[in-house]
This record gives sequence, C-alpha cells and structure tokens, in this order.
Amino acid sequence: MAICTMIYTAPTLHSPYSSFSSPAAGKAHLLGFHQKQLILFTSERRAAARRSSSSSFEVSCEAKTVVIGLAADSGCGKSTFMRRLTSVFGGVAEPPRGGNPDSNTLISDVTTVICLDDYHSLDRTGRKEKGVTALDPRANNFDLMYEQVKAIKDGKAIEKPIYNHVTGLLDPPELIQPPKILVIEGLHPMYDARVRDLLDFSIYLDISNDVKFAWKIQRDMAERGHSLESIKASIQARKPDFDAYIDPQKKYADAVIEVLPTQLIPGDNEGKVLRVRLIMKEGLKYFKPVYLFDEGSTINWIPCGRKLTCSYPGIKFFYGPDSYFSNEVSMLEMDGQFDRLEELIYVESHLSNLSTKFYGEVTQQLLKHSDFPGSNNGTGLFQTIVGLKIRDLYEQLIAETAATPAEAAKV
Amino acid sequence: MAICTMIYTAPTLHSPYSSFSSPAAGKAHLLGFHQKQLILFTSERRAAARRSSSSSFEVSCEAKTVVIGLAADSGCGKSTFMRRLTSVFGGVAEPPRGGNPDSNTLISDVTTVICLDDYHSLDRTGRKEKGVTALDPRANNFDLMYEQVKAIKDGKAIEKPIYNHVTGLLDPPELIQPPKILVIEGLHPMYDARVRDLLDFSIYLDISNDVKFAWKIQRDMAERGHSLESIKASIQARKPDFDAYIDPQKKYADAVIEVLPTQLIPGDNEGKVLRVRLIMKEGLKYFKPVYLFDEGSTINWIPCGRKLTCSYPGIKFFYGPDSYFSNEVSMLEMDGQFDRLEELIYVESHLSNLSTKFYGEVTQQLLKHSDFPGSNNGTGLFQTIVGLKIRDLYEQLIAETAATPAEAAKV
Repeated sequence: MAICTMIYTAPTLHSPYSSFSSPAAGKAHLLGFHQKQLILFTSERRAAARRSSSSSFEVSCEAKTVVIGLAADSGCGKSTFMRRLTSVFGGVAEPPRGGNPDSNTLISDVTTVICLDDYHSLDRTGRKEKGVTALDPRANNFDLMYEQVKAIKDGKAIEKPIYNHVTGLLDPPELIQPPKILVIEGLHPMYDARVRDLLDFSIYLDISNDVKFAWKIQRDMAERGHSLESIKASIQARKPDFDAYIDPQKKYADAVIEVLPTQLIPGDNEGKVLRVRLIMKEGLKYFKPVYLFDEGSTINWIPCGRKLTCSYPGIKFFYGPDSYFSNEVSMLEMDGQFDRLEELIYVESHLSNLSTKFYGEVTQQLLKHSDFPGSNNGTGLFQTIVGLKIRDLYEQLIAETAATPAEAAKV
Repeated sequence: MAICTMIYTAPTLHSPYSSFSSPAAGKAHLLGFHQKQLILFTSERRAAARRSSSSSFEVSCEAKTVVIGLAADSGCGKSTFMRRLTSVFGGVAEPPRGGNPDSNTLISDVTTVICLDDYHSLDRTGRKEKGVTALDPRANNFDLMYEQVKAIKDGKAIEKPIYNHVTGLLDPPELIQPPKILVIEGLHPMYDARVRDLLDFSIYLDISNDVKFAWKIQRDMAERGHSLESIKASIQARKPDFDAYIDPQKKYADAVIEVLPTQLIPGDNEGKVLRVRLIMKEGLKYFKPVYLFDEGSTINWIPCGRKLTCSYPGIKFFYGPDSYFSNEVSMLEMDGQFDRLEELIYVESHLSNLSTKFYGEVTQQLLKHSDFPGSNNGTGLFQTIVGLKIRDLYEQLIAETAATPAEAAKV
C-alpha cells in the first residue's frame, strides 16, 4: 500500500488541475503517525517536465514501510549488525525518547529496530513454571507479532509490549510509529509463515557451534567468571530447542552470514580468526548478489601477494555459485582478517554489485566503526555489505512506488 | 648494432640539412643481405614534428635482429609453436625457395626459424660410431652455432650447415640472411653460455614424462606400429642425456610451457586432456607477464558456471606468483580444454597483459589455426600468448632503436 499526493503546478493561475489529491490521500491523517517523504519523478519524467518547463509535477508519497527480518541466537552480534545497518543510512539509533529505559527498541531517522523478545507470551517465571525456553514457540505470541508487523506495514502505529531483559517481566507497551524501514530482530522472525510473508528481506546470522562455544568461553568464563562446565551445560541445554525452532529458519533467509572457524591456521579453535560466508539467494527482484571478479564462476583468491602484503595467517576469499536448501545461491567467503586499510580497499575494489554510492564506501563504513566487534574480519565486511544491499533494496522499492503513483494509490 | 639513415625534409629547397646519412650508413651495402625497414618516431616526436609542420624527420633504420631461443625435445610441438608464432606476424613460413628440399629452415616476412640440429657436428653414422646421442653436446658444434647467431645479430648473412633428417647426413650449407626475428629452435639453444647471451628471449617447452609417454604411444604405436616395449626402451635410452643436457636449460628460460596430465579426471593417463602451465619470469624489461583478474595475487578460477557452461571435465585456471629455479615468476595454468568459441573469448576477456592489438586477438589466432594440435587446450593458448608477447618485445626493441637513432648508430 502506498498513499500519495500529487501536486501539479501550471503557469496559468486558474488552471483546474493546479492541485489535486489521489482518492486514498485522506487516509494518511487517519493513521496519524506516518512519516512523510518527498519522492521525485525518475530522470526521464523530470526531463519531460524540464522540456515543458512551464509546469511541474511533485509527488508526496507516504511509502509503505519496508520490513527486514534478522534471525539469530542471542549473543551472536545482532546489535552490532543493527548499528552497522543504521550507520549506512547516516543516522544514529537510540531508544525511544522519554520511554521505558529498558526498551529494546532502537530508532533512527530511517530505521526502527524492534526486538522480537518483546513478543514473549511468557515472562521468565512463566517459562520456568511451564518448563519451556524462550526459544520455544509456546513462549512467544506469534498472533500479536503478525498483527503488529502487518499494522506497521499498513502505516498504522502500534502499542508494542516490552520484554524487560533485566527483570524478566513484561513491561507496559510502548508506541511504535511506522518507520521507513522496520527491522524485526530476534529468535523467530521467520518462524511464523504469516510474519515471514511480510518480510521484504530476511537475514540469518549463523554462528557455528565451535565459534559460539569459543565466544561464550571468552565472554562468560573470562569476563563473568563462569566455569567451563557450566558454559558447556548451558549451551547443551539450549541446543534441542535451538535446533528445532531457530536453525530451520535459515532455509527461508535471503541472505545468511555463516561464521566458522578459520581454515588458515590448522587446528585453530580460538575463534579469533574467523572464516565468514555470505550466502546470497539468487533470482530476487531487488537484491543482486555481490560477486568477486567474474559473476557466476568459481574463484579462490588470495589477495596477499606481490601487490598487497598481509601478515600471518593472511586472507583468503572464495566466490562461487552453490545451492542452499534447494535454493540457487551465490557464496562469498572470507577467511582471515585485515591488518590495515590498504587490505580492505584492495578487496573492496575487486568486489562488484556492492550497491555503494561511491568508491570505497564499504571501507569507509568499516573504518568509521573500527571499534565495533568484527570490523577487521568477514562479519563486519558482510554485515556492512548487507546493510548497503538493504539500503539499495529500500531505494528500489520507493523508486518503484514513486514511478507508479497512480497504480500504487489504487492498492 | 643498428644502422640508420635519417632524412630531414625542410620547406626551403636549398637547406644544407635536406638529407644526410649517419657515419655507419655505408656499411649496410657491404653486408649485403640486410632487410630494410622504415621506423617512425615515437608519437611524442611525431607530435613535435606536427607542431613545426613545415619540416619532418624520417629514419630508415636497419634494426638489429631480435633473437629468440626455443628449447624442447623432439616431438614436443616445436613446429606447431613456430607456425603459431609466424602467424602472429601475419605471414606464412616456408622453406627457402629453390634450396635444399630437406632444409629445416622456415622463412616468413618477419621471422626466420632455424633448427639447431643443423649444428650437429656428427652425422647419424658418426654418432653411432662414437656411441653418443644427438642430445650429447659432443655431437654438436657450439662454436659454429655461436659465431653464426652472432653474425646474424650483427647484420651479416651466414652459410649455415644443413642436417638432413631423412638421410642422417650433413648436407651442403644454405645462405641465411639476417631477418627481423631469428628463432633458433632445437635441443640446445640455451646450453652454451655464449649463444644464451645472444638471446633476447628464451622459451622452454617442458613436456612431462607421463605426457611424453602418452604422446609417443599414440604416435609410434597407433600410427607406426611400434611395440609398447620398444617405445619404453627408446624413451629410457634417451633419458640420461636428456636429463643431463636438455632439461637443465629450463632454468635459463624467460618463459616455460609445462605440459602435465590433467587433474580434472582422477587417474587419467591418456594425455588427451592436459594441464598446461605458463611460467613467466618477472622483472624483464620487455616482457610483462600475463595475469588473471588481479596482478600478483593467487587465484583459482573455474570459468564454467552460471554464465558459461562447459562440458565434462570442465576448465580450471590457476594464476599466482611463484619461484622457479630461484627466479621470481608468475604462473598461469589451464587444466582442461575448450569446446566452443564462447569459452575461449570468455577466458581471454579475463586475462590481462596479453599484448594483443585488438579485443579477441588470441581467440582469433586460435580459431584461425583450429586444425593445429592443441588449439583447444593450454598448449595452443599459451603458445599463442607467447607469440603475442614476442611480437610485443620485438616492437618495443625496434621502437627503442628508433627513439635513439643517434646512439644506436654509434654502437
């Protein structure tokens, strides 16, 4: 659905067409919280307007919210990913002003990120009583999740519950207005078919067990003083539900970021040097997979060599067509990490379909947030690339809406 | 040595500089058989001439013969290579007209190819009597080889002996005039240090034992009715001298074409599908190695995929820096063979530093001679590329001579 207002300016003062609204335009005010945006005609139409020069069109269009789903287990870098995505759009993401300080929501000019934990139907005590984990669908309210995501997509504000991670309780709801881009992140964005169908793009962060274990050890053992045994036990306890309810969602994802142990250091299990794969679905209308050197062929690339020297253990790339859960995909893999800016820009210059707006934008984004975890490896690189692809997808969708205002208004 | 005549044209009829010769110019007629060629100034000088517009320079320069050495065992495709090289220069190579019908020499407009077997000091009977093979340096006259190659390089015609491969005898000599490019091909172009030093570029055709064996079986068993045992025995008999005198020359080569069994078909020993490597020395002034996608990095490439479909067993490329007998080299490898033109042009479009004069020249050359052995695999591809690199090297050398006619005349 798109709600548009067209304004036609003619040199004659008494033209009967000097201003008109589409039949659906009135609705916008009823819905209340919709952000407005101005959309210009495509260049061809602008050129036509310039030729006539005595008159012009402007379309003010309240575009449909683009909905992105991001699935991943907790502690897998979703929040870093969201900060990278927000940064691509140029804004800073912050919790709703004056609201619950424990809100999980992050709002920037373009994006609103909501955490699907807010749709827990059972609080911590309730889950304990019923013996279900937060991963279990029975602890989550998918009906409400669907209704509210649909409402946002329809341009309606919602009163979304808040799951308080500190207290483990369900707090009073917060008001969420329809943004340009809504990101729903959490354990189950693709679990319910109705919610899944509302997604314009979906991403799955797939951290391999080895890496997850190495990360947990680092955080929970080194920083929080947990024992190795208790960490192992907690991972084991989560595993059956994770395998049953979370992991199967990846087959629906348009892009998967897989994080694996490096293959550059034989026997490495530290989880510091990572092998990261970006699996991109082929055949999508608004998403063209990134490629290395030659689209559709299979390539192994070690950029470190005569022109670029890298420190041990170096960097290795792979690109090629593949199949993923019966879907045709393109696979881009990076093993190793960057030491210096030169390495990053060198790699960027050999990747195509990045959806950057200028040469070196990927490198600039990573440098801007060099303090974020993973900025020197494939997680940062691929999260940034996915961010750029989402911006591109968003711009294609609004351009399409703008290009067909009459049809869009009929929807 | 280069012998040049400069002609200066001025608008004033009585200019004292309207025509002059360099002091060495007279020599040309004494040497007799020198081919003439007209060399223009470099574009910068031409531009300067155009600016003055009332006068012009022309330099007619008898450039030094460029000497190329090609080493390989007999039956390893030297003659095909020579036909490809000649074709790059646009001419057809033929034996000297009206000469010995068993001459081993091939002459075209630009190139003269002489076979180093002509420098055998012992004929077939002599070798049998002394118990030496043709591979043994004692069966070859390196003093004469050096003197004659040097004479050609100095612009002097020679009376070169002929070894008659039909009779096994040394026939009366034939007259060879200094060409633009002299190719000396045979068993020992790089064996003697004096001859080696005369080479402007050197190539070694390195056919692995497995492939050599497969080829001999195919030719000698299938076509000539030899037994498998006799073929094995003949290869074994040649091996000690080959290892002692021929093989060690490859460490001096500027380019090596290595022919190996395919790795695409496990256990294949038919020698029909080949893995061919072009090993190119780095740091040469007139020879810049070809590269795939990204100069100096390491790449494995399977072009067959989404955009290009190839039949079994496909095609695989490798490119990367390496070391060869302590020399820094670039390695380009092709395993497999082309089925169709599309595959060839697709590959050519991703190679750089090919020294082609137009897009698709490599493909055009291979198609022109699709009947030559190896046109669909790495031997044909790399022989053609080396031919183009030799043309480029030749053009750089004559351009340099033309750019410094005064100094060149002094030599």
